[in-house]
Amino acid sequence: MNFCSNCGGRVHLQVPTGDDRPRHVCQACGMVHYRNPLMVVGCIPQWEDRILLCRRNIEPRKGKWTLPAGYLENGETVIEGARRETWEEAGSRVADLAPYLLFDIVYVNQVYLMFRAQMETPDYCTTDESSEVALFHETEIPWHDIAFRVMEKTLARYFEDRSVGRYPFRIRQVTRARQ
Amino acid sequence: MNFCSNCGGRVHLQVPTGDDRPRHVCQACGMVHYRNPLMVVGCIPQWEDRILLCRRNIEPRKGKWTLPAGYLENGETVIEGARRETWEEAGSRVADLAPYLLFDIVYVNQVYLMFRAQMETPDYCTTDESSEVALFHETEIPWHDIAFRVMEKTLARYFEDRSVGRYPFRIRQVTRARQ
Ligand SMILES: [Zn+2]
Ligand SMILES: [Zn+2]
Repeated sequence: MNFCSNCGGRVHLQVPTGDDRPRHVCQACGMVHYRNPLMVVGCIPQWEDRILLCRRNIEPRKGKWTLPAGYLENGETVIEGARRETWEEAGSRVADLAPYLLFDIVYVNQVYLMFRAQMETPDYCTTDESSEVALFHETEIPWHDIAFRVMEKTLARYFEDRSVGRYPFRIRQVTRARQ
Repeated sequence: MNFCSNCGGRVHLQVPTGDDRPRHVCQACGMVHYRNPLMVVGCIPQWEDRILLCRRNIEPRKGKWTLPAGYLENGETVIEGARRETWEEAGSRVADLAPYLLFDIVYVNQVYLMFRAQMETPDYCTTDESSEVALFHETEIPWHDIAFRVMEKTLARYFEDRSVGRYPFRIRQVTRARQ
């Protein structure tokens, strides 16, 4: 951030009066510009005993498999956001969304909220964002080709919970991978 | 938003290629500036059978009572954020945070995540943000002087759940009050 979105003046990083951390402060109009974590919402779409995965058609991780998820938009609830992303990425309508996992991904300032969800019909399709969309049995999950660790963890937890038939809501963290 | 935070150029509201809704797009450098919901994290601090409330020392709703809560900051987990806010607003250290209620407040583009929490000691104090901080029995809650509807709903749900001894995680919505 270099300029003030309000007046176009230069911003400097400084600790505002009464605050305890540096913010981008406009040197012209004085406005303080905060930066806060973004929410990502998504789901595990389920049809009978299979779940729906999308093969990414865009970078990063183009060609890898993932669950439908994306940034929560202004003007929608978290459930509406997760349903919208599932429609946009997989062409699937989901219902009965149950909150399931929240991931803090502090090093990229993101909070993931993942739901379990039922597909309303077994319909889905490729989209601009997904070159392939398919239903997978547990034994068919492409574990070595999952796009993001948050999705790998979501899937692993899901099948673990499914084996005992209980899906408690949990908070977990994804930390930067060791080099 | 009037100016680009990257180059200082003018931004216009327009639908970027491949998008489906208007964004602030810089006419000089082309950068698309997204605006997304903010997360607020807070908790219900509990000491034995009492809970901790803060009387707001700042606008809006100065003089009204609330639970400690505030914007999630970059660089912290949702639990760290809720603990920090409780320390800053009530001078209380809390532990054992359990996710309890998520509120969509779409008309202000906020998502509230409220935890139940145990106070580590019965210590608390007034702060810059709170002119008074106190422990309340259920019968002492100042129901007509609660600052925000989201907090009123949180407290009502908490005492209802406490009466049956179960606190399932729930998602709820706060809609604009009828005029
Ligand atoms: Zn300015
Ligand atoms: Zn620009």
